[in-house]
Amino acid sequence: MSSKKKLGVGLIGTGFMGKAHALGFTIAARVFDLPFELDLVSVADVTTESAENARRRLGFRKATADWRELLTDPDIDIIDITTPNLLHKEMALAAIAHGKHVYCEKPLAPMVTDCAEMVAAAEKAGVTTQVGFNYLKNPLIFLAKDIIESGEIGEIRSMRGVHAEDFMADASVPWGWRLNPASGGGALADIGSHIIASMRHLVGPIKSVLAETIIQIPERPVSAGASEMRAVEVDDITRAFVRFENGATGSFEANWIATGRKMQHDFEIYGSKGSIVFTQERLNEIRVYSTGDDIRSRGFRTIWAGPEHPPYGAFCVAPGHQIGFNDLKAIEVNEFLEAIAKGKPPSTDFREGYEVQKVLSATYQSAKTNEWVQIG
Amino acid sequence: MSSKKKLGVGLIGTGFMGKAHALGFTIAARVFDLPFELDLVSVADVTTESAENARRRLGFRKATADWRELLTDPDIDIIDITTPNLLHKEMALAAIAHGKHVYCEKPLAPMVTDCAEMVAAAEKAGVTTQVGFNYLKNPLIFLAKDIIESGEIGEIRSMRGVHAEDFMADASVPWGWRLNPASGGGALADIGSHIIASMRHLVGPIKSVLAETIIQIPERPVSAGASEMRAVEVDDITRAFVRFENGATGSFEANWIATGRKMQHDFEIYGSKGSIVFTQERLNEIRVYSTGDDIRSRGFRTIWAGPEHPPYGAFCVAPGHQIGFNDLKAIEVNEFLEAIAKGKPPSTDFREGYEVQKVLSATYQSAKTNEWVQIG
Amino acid sequence: MSSKKKLGVGLIGTGFMGKAHALGFTIAARVFDLPFELDLVSVADVTTESAENARRRLGFRKATADWRELLTDPDIDIIDITTPNLLHKEMALAAIAHGKHVYCEKPLAPMVTDCAEMVAAAEKAGVTTQVGFNYLKNPLIFLAKDIIESGEIGEIRSMRGVHAEDFMADASVPWGWRLNPASGGGALADIGSHIIASMRHLVGPIKSVLAETIIQIPERPVSAGASEMRAVEVDDITRAFVRFENGATGSFEANWIATGRKMQHDFEIYGSKGSIVFTQERLNEIRVYSTGDDIRSRGFRTIWAGPEHPPYGAFCVAPGHQIGFNDLKAIEVNEFLEAIAKGKPPSTDFREGYEVQKVLSATYQSAKTNEWVQIG
Amino acid sequence: MSSKKKLGVGLIGTGFMGKAHALGFTIAARVFDLPFELDLVSVADVTTESAENARRRLGFRKATADWRELLTDPDIDIIDITTPNLLHKEMALAAIAHGKHVYCEKPLAPMVTDCAEMVAAAEKAGVTTQVGFNYLKNPLIFLAKDIIESGEIGEIRSMRGVHAEDFMADASVPWGWRLNPASGGGALADIGSHIIASMRHLVGPIKSVLAETIIQIPERPVSAGASEMRAVEVDDITRAFVRFENGATGSFEANWIATGRKMQHDFEIYGSKGSIVFTQERLNEIRVYSTGDDIRSRGFRTIWAGPEHPPYGAFCVAPGHQIGFNDLKAIEVNEFLEAIAKGKPPSTDFREGYEVQKVLSATYQSAKTNEWVQIG
Repeated sequence: MSSKKKLGVGLIGTGFMGKAHALGFTIAARVFDLPFELDLVSVADVTTESAENARRRLGFRKATADWRELLTDPDIDIIDITTPNLLHKEMALAAIAHGKHVYCEKPLAPMVTDCAEMVAAAEKAGVTTQVGFNYLKNPLIFLAKDIIESGEIGEIRSMRGVHAEDFMADASVPWGWRLNPASGGGALADIGSHIIASMRHLVGPIKSVLAETIIQIPERPVSAGASEMRAVEVDDITRAFVRFENGATGSFEANWIATGRKMQHDFEIYGSKGSIVFTQERLNEIRVYSTGDDIRSRGFRTIWAGPEHPPYGAFCVAPGHQIGFNDLKAIEVNEFLEAIAKGKPPSTDFREGYEVQKVLSATYQSAKTNEWVQIG
Repeated sequence: MSSKKKLGVGLIGTGFMGKAHALGFTIAARVFDLPFELDLVSVADVTTESAENARRRLGFRKATADWRELLTDPDIDIIDITTPNLLHKEMALAAIAHGKHVYCEKPLAPMVTDCAEMVAAAEKAGVTTQVGFNYLKNPLIFLAKDIIESGEIGEIRSMRGVHAEDFMADASVPWGWRLNPASGGGALADIGSHIIASMRHLVGPIKSVLAETIIQIPERPVSAGASEMRAVEVDDITRAFVRFENGATGSFEANWIATGRKMQHDFEIYGSKGSIVFTQERLNEIRVYSTGDDIRSRGFRTIWAGPEHPPYGAFCVAPGHQIGFNDLKAIEVNEFLEAIAKGKPPSTDFREGYEVQKVLSATYQSAKTNEWVQIG
Repeated sequence: MSSKKKLGVGLIGTGFMGKAHALGFTIAARVFDLPFELDLVSVADVTTESAENARRRLGFRKATADWRELLTDPDIDIIDITTPNLLHKEMALAAIAHGKHVYCEKPLAPMVTDCAEMVAAAEKAGVTTQVGFNYLKNPLIFLAKDIIESGEIGEIRSMRGVHAEDFMADASVPWGWRLNPASGGGALADIGSHIIASMRHLVGPIKSVLAETIIQIPERPVSAGASEMRAVEVDDITRAFVRFENGATGSFEANWIATGRKMQHDFEIYGSKGSIVFTQERLNEIRVYSTGDDIRSRGFRTIWAGPEHPPYGAFCVAPGHQIGFNDLKAIEVNEFLEAIAKGKPPSTDFREGYEVQKVLSATYQSAKTNEWVQIG
Repeated sequence: MSSKKKLGVGLIGTGFMGKAHALGFTIAARVFDLPFELDLVSVADVTTESAENARRRLGFRKATADWRELLTDPDIDIIDITTPNLLHKEMALAAIAHGKHVYCEKPLAPMVTDCAEMVAAAEKAGVTTQVGFNYLKNPLIFLAKDIIESGEIGEIRSMRGVHAEDFMADASVPWGWRLNPASGGGALADIGSHIIASMRHLVGPIKSVLAETIIQIPERPVSAGASEMRAVEVDDITRAFVRFENGATGSFEANWIATGRKMQHDFEIYGSKGSIVFTQERLNEIRVYSTGDDIRSRGFRTIWAGPEHPPYGAFCVAPGHQIGFNDLKAIEVNEFLEAIAKGKPPSTDFREGYEVQKVLSATYQSAKTNEWVQIG
C-alpha cells in the first residue's frame, strides 16, 4: 500500500504525441521514485471508438469523446493536451479554469498573444504547467548546461543551431494541416521551436533576430496523388541570426526538406575556453572540447550517457546502454510531477513556452522585412 | 472491455534485469498490439520487504518472499526469472513442472548439462520459453539478418565480433559473484555470451572454436577497500577463433577490462558482395556496404532506424527518434507473447540458449588446452 | 631527354603558402604527366638571406631580394604570388604586363575594384591565371560536382556552409596583419572566402546576400604579452544568408574564434533526390545520400577517396591511403599547367577569384546595414 | 651553396612503392632540414625504357636496366629496394657488400633465415638500414607511443589489431604474384606485417603466437577472365592470439577479402588507466581515453594531427590541414637520413624488419598445427 498521494491524469489526443505522453507517464512510474502515485484516469479523443481504443492500448481507466468531461472529473489533477496546435489554448484555459495542472505539447499556441493569455491564466490560478520540449530532458543536455554554468568552457561566444528533417522533402507530399498558415507557420513553427528552445536553455534569453523564410516547393497536390495543386504559403526553410542577452551571437535554421535528415537537431556552442557539439541523431553522446587539456592530447571528447549523468541511472544502472525518445518524455513527466509536488515551476513551464513562441514570432516578423526584430 | 485472453506474469528477481523485464512488459503492453492482455500478477524477491518495494515500483499486484508461491498461483502463466545464474535451473524446472511458460535471463545456466536438462523438460512439457538475448531484438539487427538471408551481400565469409566493457578494469574492484567460478566463468560467461548469440543469429551455427582465456588482474580485494587480496580464477579476457557450419570463419573477444568501453558489442560481417558493420554503442545505426553500388559512389551506408525497420514504428512513427535499451526488452517480450499465442518457439528459446551455452562451454574447454573443440 | 617544353617558375614569398606552392610544383612534377617540364627558376623574398635560404629548401635555382627581377627573367613563364594580400595587385599587374602567366594565392586582392583591374589586365594580355582555392582541388569535391551536375541528387535546394577555425580564439592573441582592416576584413576575408568559393563551385553563382559581422573580442594586446590594448575593427564572425541564381538558397558562417576547430570547412547540400555532406576535417571522405536507394537500406554513404576519383590515382594506386593538404596544391598546379597548355582558363582563374571577392565584398557591405545586397 | 654533404640515392623498382619512395625523398628534401643534400642519382628497372621513363617522372639523373650498376656508382650512398619481395635479399646483400646504406620496402624477405642473413651482413658492414613500415611514421603514432611510454594510460593490458583490405575479395581476381607461396604467404605476408609492426612498435616484443590461416576462395582464374582455375595455396585470412613479453596479450587479423575495407589498419590498446584507438582510414586522427578525466565528462578524445605532434609541422604550420600517405614516406626518409648522420639505427632498421618477420613466420608455423609458437 502506497502512502503517496494519488495524482490523476486526463489525456486529450491519442496520436503520435498522445501515445508518447502516455508512455512517458507509464515509464516514469516504473523508473522514478515519483512524488505521487499516478492514476491514468481518462483519455479523450474525437470519437468514442478511437478514445476507447486508445484507453485500452495506453492503459487508462475511462474513455470519452468529450474532452470537457475531463475538466469536471474529480479524479483528474492533470490535463495533458496533445491535440493539434490550434486547440491548445481553449483546452488549456478550460483546464486552468478548473484548477487543473496542465501539460501541453509544444508549441503552446500559434499566436504569441494566445500564449500570453495562457501564461497569465496559469500563473493567476497557481497551477503548475509544462510544455513538451523533450529534447531538453536529455541527461547529456543537463550535462551541457552544467558545464556551461560552471564556467568550464568560459564565456559563451557563439552558437550554431539547426533542426532539419526531410518529411516534406518530397514535392508530392500533399497538402495537410502542417501547411495551414493558421497553424502558425511551416518548418519553423513545426520543428524549429525545438532549436529555439535549446538555444534559450543553454545560452540564455534571445534579444533579437534577423531572419528569412523560404518556400522552396511553391505548390503541392491538394491530396495524395491528386493532380490539382495548391499554393504553399508557409516556410520550408527559415534561417535566422540571433543575438543573446549575454552578448553571445548565433544562428539557427529550421528545414523540413533536408533530404536524408531524420533528426538533425544539431548545435555547436563555442566558448572562450572550450566548446560543446551535439546532434540529436546520436542522443546518447555529446562532444566536449576543453582548452584546459594538455595541448598535445587536446580534442573533442565523445561522452556516452551513463549513471554519472542523472537521471540516466533511473533507466539503467550501466553506462552506454542508451535511452530512447520515449524515455525523454518520462524524464519530462518526472520533472513535471516534482514541480507539482514542490509548487515551483519546471524549467519548461508555460512561461518558457511563451518565451520560445515570442522568439518564433519575432523570427517570422523579421522574415517579412528582413530587419532586426527585438524580442520584448 | 478487452476480448483478449489474460496472461499473468510472475517475476522472480528485482535487480537490474528484474526492473528491465518489468519495464519490457509495461512498455510492450503500450506500444504493441499484444495477443494477450497482460496481468502483472506477482513479484518474488529475497525478503518480503524488497519484494513489496519492487511490487509498488514495478506495478505488480502481489509480492512474496517465496518464489515457489508463484508456481501455484493460478493467475500466473509466465514465470520470469532474473535471479543470479546459479538459480536459473531450479526455478525454470519448477516452473515447467507446473506448466508455466518461462522467460529466463541469459545465460540459461552455467553448465551445459543443466541447460540440456532445462531444454528437455521444456520441450517435453510443451511450454514456450524465451532467453534474454535482447541485443538481437533490435530493428536494425532484424534488418541485418534480412539483408544476409536475402543474399544481398553474397555468401558470408567472415565475422569479427567483440563484447567489451570496462566495469572490471579497475584493479580495486573487489571480489563478487561475477568472480565466482561457479557462475560459469568470467568475462565470457558474463558478457561474451551476447556476442556468441549475435554470431549464431546472423551467420549461423558454430562448428568449432579454438580459444584462450586470460587473467590479467590476478588478485582483487576480498571486499571494497580491503587490503586482503583473493586470487582471481576466472577470465578477464577470452579470445576465440570460430568456424561456422556454412563455411564462414570468424573470431570473437570478450573483455571486461577494456578501459573506456561501456557497450562495445561490435561486429563486422564480410560477404562476397557486401558487408555489415555494427556497434551497440550506437544501437540506432547500422552500416552496410554493397558492391552493387556504382563504383565511384560506393561506401558504407549509415542507416538510421525508422518505421521501415519493424518494429521500430511501434515506438515512434518518425524515423531517427531512437529507441533505447529498455525498448529492446519490450520487443523481446512481444516476440515471446507472439510465440505463446502461436505455439511456436521464438528465435531465442531455451534451445537457442542451450546452443549458445554449448559454444561458450566449448570455448572454455578449448582454452584449457588451446585445441580446437567441436560443438556437438 | 624530355621532348616537353620547359616552363619556368618564379616564386614570390616563402612563408606558409610559399612553401605549400613550392611543394605543389614539386609533387605535381612527380605524380602527374605534366604538359611541361617544370623549371623552378627563382625565388624572391624580402631579404637576400631569406630568399637564398628558401631557394635551397624549396629547390629553386636562383634567389633574389628584388621580386621585379623575376619579371624580366627570360626563363620564367609563371609568376607565383604568395605574399600578403595587399601586395597581390601590384605584383600580378607587373607580371601580366611582362606577359607572364600568374598563379596567385587567394584572395586576389582585398578590394573588388582591384580584382576587376587584375582580371581585365589578364584577359587583355591573354595570359593564364590561377587563384589558390585548393580545397576545391579535392578528388571528392570533383565527385561532388559531378554528382550534382549529373542530376543524381535532383534539383539543388539548399546549402549550409561554414569555415571555422580557432587560431584567434584566445583573447591574448595580439594584434597582427590579420587584424588590419586594410587586409580587407577579418575572419570572412581571411578564411571565409574558401566557403564562398565552395558554394559557387558546387551550387553556382550567388545572386544576393544578407549578412552580419560580429566583433566578439573587442580589443587585443598591441603585441604578444603587452598590457597595452588596441581596438579590433574586423570581424571575428560573419554570417550570411545566400540566394543562388538557380533558385537554391543557403547560408554560410566564417569564424576564427571557434574554440576547438582546426579546419571546419563543412558543407551540406540538399537536393530534391539526395544530399551531400562534407567536412575538410576528413578530406578523404564524403557522404552522399540518395533517395534512389531502397527505403529500408537508405543512408548516407561514406565514400573514401580512391583511384576511381581522379586524380587520386596519380598519388596512389590503392584506395583509402589518403592524400594530404599539400597534395591538393599539386592538383591545383596540374590544373594550372593543363590550362596553360590548352590555352583555356582553369575553373579558378582570376575571374573566379574576382567573383568570389564580389560576394565577399557584398557580404561586408550587407553587414553594414543588414540589408540584402545584390551581386552585380 | 649548401655546406651539407651530398648523399646519393639509387632506386631499384619503379612501381607503386618505387614511386612512393621517390616522392618520399623529394618531399623530405623540401619539408625537412635534412642532414644531407640529397642527390637522386640513378633508377634501375627491368628494361631501359621503363627505367628511363621512371627517371624522367621521378626526377633522377640516370637510368639503367641493370641494378648492379648502382652498386659501383661512386655517387650512390643509399640503395633503395622496392622490387618484389623475392628479390630483396640478393639486392640488399649486394648493396651491403658494396658498403651502401640500404632502404628496403617491407617485408625484408619472405624467409626468416634470409632476413637473419641480411641483418648479420648489415650489422657487420656497419651500414645503416631502414625497412618501409611507413604507418609507424605517423605523427599521431609517435604521440601514441609517447603516451604509452609516459605511463599516462597505465600498464598496457591488451591490444586488438587488424589489417584488412578488399583487393582480393572478388573471386574473379586472377592468379598473380601475391598468390605465389614463394612470396612467403598471402594476406598475412602481404599486409599483415603492418599490424605486427604496429603491435611491436607500440606494446613491445611478442613472445608467442597461436594462429590459424583460412583460404576462403579456394581457386582463382589462371589469368584475368580465364575459365581455367588454379588452386589457391596462401591465406585469405590469418588470425592470431598474441602474448607480449611485458605481460600484455592481444590478437590480430590479416584479411585481404574484407569487402568494403580499403585501409582498415585498426588497433585498440587498453591500459589500466586509459586506452588508445586508431584507424588508418583516418590517419590524421587518434582517439585517447583517460581515467584521469573527471568522471562526468570522461570520453574518447578525438585528437587531430597538428604542429604539436612533430613532425607534422614540417608539412604545414596549421593544425587540421592533414598529411597523406606519401608524406608518411617522407617522414620515413627523414628518419633514415638522420640515422645515417648520427650513425645509430632507426627504429625500423633491418633488425626490426627481421623481428617482424620472425613473428610472421611463427604465425604461419603456428597455423599449421594450431599450437603456440614461441618467438625465439
